[in-house]
Amino acid sequence: MRLLVTWKDLTELDLKLIQRETKATLLRGNSQGETLELAPYADVIFGFVSPEILKVAVNCQWLQTPYAGAEKILGTPWGNPKMIYTNGRGIFGAPIGEHVVGLILSFNRGLYLARDNQRRRLWEPRLDHSFRELTGSTVGILGYGDLGSQVAKRLRGFECKIIGFRQYPQGNESYADVVYSLDQFDEFAPHLDYLVCALPHTEKTVGFLHKKRMQLLPEHVIIINVGRGSLIRTEDLILALQEGWIGGAALDVTDPEPLPTDSPLWEMDNVLITPHNSGFTPFHKERALEIFFKNWKCFQEDGAPKFNVVNRKLGY
Amino acid sequence: MRLLVTWKDLTELDLKLIQRETKATLLRGNSQGETLELAPYADVIFGFVSPEILKVAVNCQWLQTPYAGAEKILGTPWGNPKMIYTNGRGIFGAPIGEHVVGLILSFNRGLYLARDNQRRRLWEPRLDHSFRELTGSTVGILGYGDLGSQVAKRLRGFECKIIGFRQYPQGNESYADVVYSLDQFDEFAPHLDYLVCALPHTEKTVGFLHKKRMQLLPEHVIIINVGRGSLIRTEDLILALQEGWIGGAALDVTDPEPLPTDSPLWEMDNVLITPHNSGFTPFHKERALEIFFKNWKCFQEDGAPKFNVVNRKLGY
Repeated sequence: MRLLVTWKDLTELDLKLIQRETKATLLRGNSQGETLELAPYADVIFGFVSPEILKVAVNCQWLQTPYAGAEKILGTPWGNPKMIYTNGRGIFGAPIGEHVVGLILSFNRGLYLARDNQRRRLWEPRLDHSFRELTGSTVGILGYGDLGSQVAKRLRGFECKIIGFRQYPQGNESYADVVYSLDQFDEFAPHLDYLVCALPHTEKTVGFLHKKRMQLLPEHVIIINVGRGSLIRTEDLILALQEGWIGGAALDVTDPEPLPTDSPLWEMDNVLITPHNSGFTPFHKERALEIFFKNWKCFQEDGAPKFNVVNRKLGY
Repeated sequence: MRLLVTWKDLTELDLKLIQRETKATLLRGNSQGETLELAPYADVIFGFVSPEILKVAVNCQWLQTPYAGAEKILGTPWGNPKMIYTNGRGIFGAPIGEHVVGLILSFNRGLYLARDNQRRRLWEPRLDHSFRELTGSTVGILGYGDLGSQVAKRLRGFECKIIGFRQYPQGNESYADVVYSLDQFDEFAPHLDYLVCALPHTEKTVGFLHKKRMQLLPEHVIIINVGRGSLIRTEDLILALQEGWIGGAALDVTDPEPLPTDSPLWEMDNVLITPHNSGFTPFHKERALEIFFKNWKCFQEDGAPKFNVVNRKLGY
């Protein structure tokens, strides 16, 4: 069994561990060119892959990536169209959950304004800021899957109501007070004090939060986007903030990305920007290896990995 | 019954509500001088009071303040030594709980560094920062009363262990995994990844977190202080940060306060300063009035208020 390891973050020690756990023949390129030459021989690939590599990986039965976003790999022709693709779902629930709650609380407590004042050595309790509290408020979570539920779990202690929205509600979702289908979003939008967006990029989600939908939200709503920037057209979002249809936005993802230097979003006083790092976690490698090894066991025993299989039709 | 209302935040509408609920003769001074003249006639005072007012309030049977910190009023001679003093305990649990979690997550997610970069219009995911996760960590809460337990409640969903410390553990504290007495702090200090300080200013707490205690903590510990600045001698804290005995600090209270402009704490890259506003909440007035009215009912029926009575011996 030949295993091509493309994940750059791995050390020699990690590779030894992989070798020991998989007993595979390890292939590892020192450059993009070398990796491209090795790819046609790989039975399995572990790591992210470029479209070029994907195209020539004609014998690859299974690709495991350590990331969650699937649109780049799904949007590219595969050398082996029957390849099974598994992703890093589950790795990022905890860090993104913390990131989202941190951004909400930055707004509630004016922490970003306190930071600005700290850099001026200014002790000023009376900020030009409306302090908020989650107590008694309603938080909507657009995309109530792995990420959304981990956000909800971390919000439970804040005495707020949590409404999840997902394409196909399962009826057994934990942590949220209730989970509706995406079709029901418009009905509940007027009641949301915070809107957390954790949707993947798919045909159905691009532009989902358009002008009219943003106008359904209350004027004080804070939108937090940690899914994909394509959910909201940037010009619509800028208009929404300028016209006061919404109260603020915290964006870990933008469209385009990186956010261009001349975007007016950088300097709006009710906008927080983080550079698509909500998923950064010291446990990334540990958790990704755990998923890979669990899938490797299934692959050996049953011929196919079974955890985090990406559904090509759904796009996630 | 004569009720002197000194709380400045109250509007005419609030005063009408108080009038209606208490049926008392309302006294209200338009200046410090006027208030001082009215104070000797008051049976009850609602609001904060200066030492001068306290001294001449010789007929005051009960003082209700809308704040929690008791050291100023306890440290001053009272015109009526038998006066009962009730405070605003319970008002600030939610906002301070949110503030503390917000500060912890600012560290975990590098949100304050992202804010600095936002102001430079810089999209830079790779911060010079160790991302952290609460998952699997241990949070110590020094002062496990109203504030501490509300912090713990909000941390429950983050998969961390919570150890409370208080002078007299009751054995029935919720939200924490375990609550020890302050005497046991040194034993558990080496295991804390975060230390939340929510102690009042009393004889026993001044200087409690001294050099040797800080050296017991792990080098990566983050200290969050939302109680009183006097808990830690500022020069010791600066040394601890400079020498790397601790990993960082988030300070909503300092000693002295405001933090002097020339303090080195302002510019340390692992220090967050907020200007003693962790208790700010849009619900302050509503909650303070609720406590006051509940106590007013007891005062009318039983001759004494019973909620939030400050114990002069304990100092809180």
